[in-house]
Amino acid sequence: MVDPRKSELPTAAAAAPELPVAPQIPEVAPSTLPRSVSAPETAPIGIFDSGLGGLTVAREIMTRLPGERIIYFGDTARVPYGPKSPDTVVRYSREITAWLIEEGVKVVVVACNTATAHALDALQADFAIPVIGVVEPGARAAARVSDSGHIGVIGTAGTIASGAYERAIHAAREDATILAAACPLFVPLVEEGWLDEDATRLVAHRYLDPLRAATVDTLVLGCTHYPLLKPLISRTMGGGVRLIDSAEETAAETCRVLAHMGLAADPAGRPTHRFVASDAPEHFLRQGQRFLGEAIERVEKLTLG
Amino acid sequence: MVDPRKSELPTAAAAAPELPVAPQIPEVAPSTLPRSVSAPETAPIGIFDSGLGGLTVAREIMTRLPGERIIYFGDTARVPYGPKSPDTVVRYSREITAWLIEEGVKVVVVACNTATAHALDALQADFAIPVIGVVEPGARAAARVSDSGHIGVIGTAGTIASGAYERAIHAAREDATILAAACPLFVPLVEEGWLDEDATRLVAHRYLDPLRAATVDTLVLGCTHYPLLKPLISRTMGGGVRLIDSAEETAAETCRVLAHMGLAADPAGRPTHRFVASDAPEHFLRQGQRFLGEAIERVEKLTLG
Repeated sequence: MVDPRKSELPTAAAAAPELPVAPQIPEVAPSTLPRSVSAPETAPIGIFDSGLGGLTVAREIMTRLPGERIIYFGDTARVPYGPKSPDTVVRYSREITAWLIEEGVKVVVVACNTATAHALDALQADFAIPVIGVVEPGARAAARVSDSGHIGVIGTAGTIASGAYERAIHAAREDATILAAACPLFVPLVEEGWLDEDATRLVAHRYLDPLRAATVDTLVLGCTHYPLLKPLISRTMGGGVRLIDSAEETAAETCRVLAHMGLAADPAGRPTHRFVASDAPEHFLRQGQRFLGEAIERVEKLTLG
Repeated sequence: MVDPRKSELPTAAAAAPELPVAPQIPEVAPSTLPRSVSAPETAPIGIFDSGLGGLTVAREIMTRLPGERIIYFGDTARVPYGPKSPDTVVRYSREITAWLIEEGVKVVVVACNTATAHALDALQADFAIPVIGVVEPGARAAARVSDSGHIGVIGTAGTIASGAYERAIHAAREDATILAAACPLFVPLVEEGWLDEDATRLVAHRYLDPLRAATVDTLVLGCTHYPLLKPLISRTMGGGVRLIDSAEETAAETCRVLAHMGLAADPAGRPTHRFVASDAPEHFLRQGQRFLGEAIERVEKLTLG
């Protein structure tokens, strides 16, 4: 959620000259737009992630676009992607995208920061439908709303090491000063359900105090698990810091892309979604609710690789 | 390490009748012994794990059997095995074992609790060389050294849910009262290197206080990552509780099996070991030292699956 209040933190004027707020940021990232489109507007939206985390993106898309039918694929047989090499992540992402296109989707949302960082360019080059990643929408929102240009980014070790958010923020706003921090314990803490425990608060202070000390006025939650920690992260950072939820921003970007391409479904429809996992669908069924915010009735299993 | 001191905790006499200490536990588990053996004693020992954790087992084997050559395979492309279905884990384990046998190993050590729980029986049935798991050696040691028969087991969610340690302890000691607890945050805490931090202590108390309250006198560290947390776990449990390190017990079992089969290498040899990973060998090289206790000079990459 983007906090509409002005930052109350001191801004470092030297590093952040007064600029009109992001006049140069176009509404839709040009790289997202495909070379040709064949699917009808009644076709589903394909979303994939290495596991369950991407359901926070699916949730925001369902909220914002209630008439859109969704096929969600969680690659639970090969989760997590974070420690895997870029080549391997590209191979997995291509395979899943090809399957989603066979299933007739009109757009693919890569709801995984690692897959976006390593594979988005390859997917956009290889496939003829729009492919939307989670990095650029969050990065562009941060560039837009930050007053001081001091922007923090948190994510898994892999996402931070990739430098993808820094590149995307700098592409949108050259004067940005970016401090990125890997928070590898946040995902297991969310998966354990410890969203507001003493241990989680201690871990959050260890990871976030340096960002707070650096007086960032905007913090990008660069991992699909982190929206569940939003209240705790917000308290740890202090009320003046705006949190950018990549899941919300990606849903907004999906909405813009569909409108731009004339591919939006009838908003009055009440579609049935599909959830597919590459392993342990019963685990997906049990745990998915926490991320999706509502119960999942059925999970199909599809073996890939 | 097995603490040689007697437990100072009260023993629950009702639940644990006085028994001679494990008279019924044979020295080598009969299921480990193979149907036939073709490899010479100069052949290497094959060890595999889903990732780096099994290096704690390799380390104990190197210490106890310094003349043995080791081929270690970490399935880093598919780590972790914990959330994966039993069928998938059996498939991966068969594939790796077949590869190790092609490489000429004389014995395979499954240095992964999940793979042992799901796949050990299948591997022992399918392959003609000895296959040693990590569960039974630790379980048998706990059954042997516990005075009260009140035994705690900690491991990943998958290991605990499998019930493998309970079954193995009960098989060795019918009167045992077993309390098992999943500690899913311990692995990421070890991987973060937070072996003695405030957050780790808080997490340890959350997980271990119920085991302490239940007056277990013996605690099995049922995960290959946990030996790195031994000092902190020992302090949290109190000095009277004996910690059973599955890595040490598995090394001892390997030593017994090789002696029993006449397959032990010349202890005066100074062999060169091989380390192989299915993905990101440079990450393995950097992080492996923490688990192995010494630097790794070279990691080969082998793509499986």
